[in-house]
Amino acid sequence: MKRIFGQNHIGYQESVLGDRVFLGINPKTNEPFETAFIQATKEEVDTALEKAKQAFEVYRLIPVEKRVAFLKAISEKAKANKEALIHWFCTESALPEDRAETELNRSCYQFEYYADAVATGYALEIKHDSANPDRKPAPKPSLMKMNVPVGPVVVFGASNFPFAYSVLGGDVASALAAGCPVLVKAHAMHPHTSSLSAQLILETAREHGMPDGIFSHLLAEDFTVGQQLVQDLRTKAVGFTGSIGGGMALQNLINERSEPISLYAEMGSSNPIVVTKTALANRTNEIAKQISASVLLNAGQFCTSPGLLFVEESAELNHLKAAISRYFSESELQCMLHPGISKRYFERAKEHETCVEVIYKGRSEGNFIQPTLSETGGEAFLSNPKIQEEVFGSYLTIIRCKDASELQSCLRSLQGQLTMSVYAEEQEDLQDLLAVMTMKAGRIIFNGVPTGVEVSFAQQHGGPFPSSLNSYFTSVGWDAIKRFQRPVTFQNFPGAFENKHLKFNENAHFLHFLNGKYV
Amino acid sequence: MKRIFGQNHIGYQESVLGDRVFLGINPKTNEPFETAFIQATKEEVDTALEKAKQAFEVYRLIPVEKRVAFLKAISEKAKANKEALIHWFCTESALPEDRAETELNRSCYQFEYYADAVATGYALEIKHDSANPDRKPAPKPSLMKMNVPVGPVVVFGASNFPFAYSVLGGDVASALAAGCPVLVKAHAMHPHTSSLSAQLILETAREHGMPDGIFSHLLAEDFTVGQQLVQDLRTKAVGFTGSIGGGMALQNLINERSEPISLYAEMGSSNPIVVTKTALANRTNEIAKQISASVLLNAGQFCTSPGLLFVEESAELNHLKAAISRYFSESELQCMLHPGISKRYFERAKEHETCVEVIYKGRSEGNFIQPTLSETGGEAFLSNPKIQEEVFGSYLTIIRCKDASELQSCLRSLQGQLTMSVYAEEQEDLQDLLAVMTMKAGRIIFNGVPTGVEVSFAQQHGGPFPSSLNSYFTSVGWDAIKRFQRPVTFQNFPGAFENKHLKFNENAHFLHFLNGKYV
Repeated sequence: MKRIFGQNHIGYQESVLGDRVFLGINPKTNEPFETAFIQATKEEVDTALEKAKQAFEVYRLIPVEKRVAFLKAISEKAKANKEALIHWFCTESALPEDRAETELNRSCYQFEYYADAVATGYALEIKHDSANPDRKPAPKPSLMKMNVPVGPVVVFGASNFPFAYSVLGGDVASALAAGCPVLVKAHAMHPHTSSLSAQLILETAREHGMPDGIFSHLLAEDFTVGQQLVQDLRTKAVGFTGSIGGGMALQNLINERSEPISLYAEMGSSNPIVVTKTALANRTNEIAKQISASVLLNAGQFCTSPGLLFVEESAELNHLKAAISRYFSESELQCMLHPGISKRYFERAKEHETCVEVIYKGRSEGNFIQPTLSETGGEAFLSNPKIQEEVFGSYLTIIRCKDASELQSCLRSLQGQLTMSVYAEEQEDLQDLLAVMTMKAGRIIFNGVPTGVEVSFAQQHGGPFPSSLNSYFTSVGWDAIKRFQRPVTFQNFPGAFENKHLKFNENAHFLHFLNGKYV
Repeated sequence: MKRIFGQNHIGYQESVLGDRVFLGINPKTNEPFETAFIQATKEEVDTALEKAKQAFEVYRLIPVEKRVAFLKAISEKAKANKEALIHWFCTESALPEDRAETELNRSCYQFEYYADAVATGYALEIKHDSANPDRKPAPKPSLMKMNVPVGPVVVFGASNFPFAYSVLGGDVASALAAGCPVLVKAHAMHPHTSSLSAQLILETAREHGMPDGIFSHLLAEDFTVGQQLVQDLRTKAVGFTGSIGGGMALQNLINERSEPISLYAEMGSSNPIVVTKTALANRTNEIAKQISASVLLNAGQFCTSPGLLFVEESAELNHLKAAISRYFSESELQCMLHPGISKRYFERAKEHETCVEVIYKGRSEGNFIQPTLSETGGEAFLSNPKIQEEVFGSYLTIIRCKDASELQSCLRSLQGQLTMSVYAEEQEDLQDLLAVMTMKAGRIIFNGVPTGVEVSFAQQHGGPFPSSLNSYFTSVGWDAIKRFQRPVTFQNFPGAFENKHLKFNENAHFLHFLNGKYV
């Protein structure tokens, strides 16, 4: 069992220099926990950055097999400390134990998964052009392109995934896999989980002879530590998961740097679902059940929780509303992650309800909530852009459109989204719907809900602004590594040099361009 | 023959609403040309943006074969108008006819080349995960990921490539290939070439039934048109080639937008060359000749022209200096692109020469120059960051390092570069040199000069800041298309939908993930 006494981890150094402290809070009781967490000082942050810079020089050059072994060992270490991790996860977030277990499995899988992306050579993305010394007027050079890591990465964990988007999360795993040291700004809503996770990574790093500074964990309740981290020129990329306000504030700080860097911010999304008239008529209750379950899942505290449901006027609409209302009213109260989150939920719901009509108003007690169902017409939706703003937590709004044309207009008025879903029958012509959906979302789901982001090769988790700040990239799937790498081309290097890299990749896929075709 | 009367092209509409005019200048004589070019008004720019937005809705959905045919036809059209194009290219830029011909061939090739990237399916970058309905606890969905165009793209052409980085250039070709409409801010140093090129694209677009607004050409001498273009929310990406000052000014304007977008700016680079002691001893004259030819090429007006030459102290260094001085002094005077460019060249050379020692001072007459060779010691280089700032045009500075350690320090002190070269023998251990070069450059060349950017699959043209603003992307090679596309994943879509896209790609490469391996 590790010791959690509110310390920062400046590389391998435990450090408690500051005099500003904060406490974790039990969301079920609103009672604070005992341990005082000590906010990192300017000097501690500076030391962590300098160590990361130095560690990068070593880490990027160690043999890839060692990087792979290190990543896999983090997964093993987390599994071996499962009990303590799950204890703090549930205590700090009020999320249920089955969720904690699923999320920890996902986190461990992600470390192994990104290790595989490195081991197979996928992460290098090697592309090769053969030389043609006889080409006229000038010989064609050989070109070999591959990815290199960008340098120290700063990660801001998310409140709603204390494992999978925090210290043991995908941003950390993919940045380490890319060959970059990581500095985590701990999320103040789960400092124990965060601190314990950090110690597991550091212990693994030590055991694998990784350089001091490959990982640091910095505590802060206010914005100053984050500001210093993203504005320091030693930081070369930033991963963030949180609100639109938080992401944009970080981007504004980054805009003041003399050297621009990429911020990969995953922000808000209402994950609209469209149900066609035919699908609604054929499967009213099945659809109501699926969507309700998705809204209800862990009190809707997911970036992919559905918030908007678009339907055309029809006889079955009343059945749909009644069915969803029933599922919502029969559901148990669920505790939100933190008093700050539930406070914001109630505020946003109240704002939202000045623009819509409430069908079923969820009950609440302290930080415990039941979902609310509301509705509005397509015309009202079009005239008031506030209606589409996310209410983080279980909250669903039905938008009644009078016909396909109004539905199309409503969808066109949407901001960028992480996901959009369409419930339809296979024989229906979805061309018009898909034309607008591909412009608005990063992932489009057929007959399914947006929650449940498969950690898989062809996944895209990241959509047009404001759902993400950089929709060209994904935070889930092997391609997430590309956020922390840039390509370098080697021209006319000797065969021995090229072969060393191509050989590494011999059992894996790489693209070789030969005689005008890539093979 | 097209008519050039100083008009803007707002989609298919010729437009001359403004009252601000500017003239082209013959750099050989400093005489202005006759035609008054009329700066686009705020209303004209607004109309062009609205047309682009509307055109995008059509263009992104037309069958891919039509897009491919359109791109190829632009190449044909340019070839058919070769004489007029080359006439204006040479007249406005003072570049020689053989260069004009080479550059036009490259431009035409690029349109065909990006058409192939679309035709083969490469541009879609399809990735596929098969479903597994039997997986426990939850079925695995099918996922198909592919790229979609982002929307209207604004392109700022470069002064030094009136074809290949201007209206008929790689940014325009790759954006059109991606499925995006393009708005070009014409470069005021070659308005005739730019205007003629625009008319050829528009004529081809009409012949291929492309929507009005797929292409616009806007004239401006000052910054206002560019500012309006990049700050308008209908613009979804920007391509720029020019100075660091110009690129950063654009980035600052973009930072004021409520919706962030990517600026792909290729800015300055000194393209350092390192010659090892062994290589210098073995091949003094050959190396001097190659490097001199590269510096001399078209008065050094390339983003990849070499400006810094690093060598360790050795007996052969004096021979190298003498040989380069001889090549420089024997070279003919070459006219620079524009009086503005030569003025800046003389200013920068003067500034630079307050920090270095001149070995051979090139002659000059009006806008005609001969290269200058200067030198400095490693210690001086390390203590004065101004020495590494680019002098745009033929200008080479030798940095004498007292040993390998000082050389390493000098290389570590470099800003980001588009390229770095190393002249060495195959048996030499280059590990330390390559370790620093991969962190500093986008392309690394073995025994060769940086000029001559192969338009090829595995090319990387774009390096760490400030050589580029976004080093994750390239402006040359098929991957340049990715600057104007973002990925979308389709989850659980019916086989018929998936097959339509996979079939399109059947003869091409795509990645299919099956049973834990990608194949």
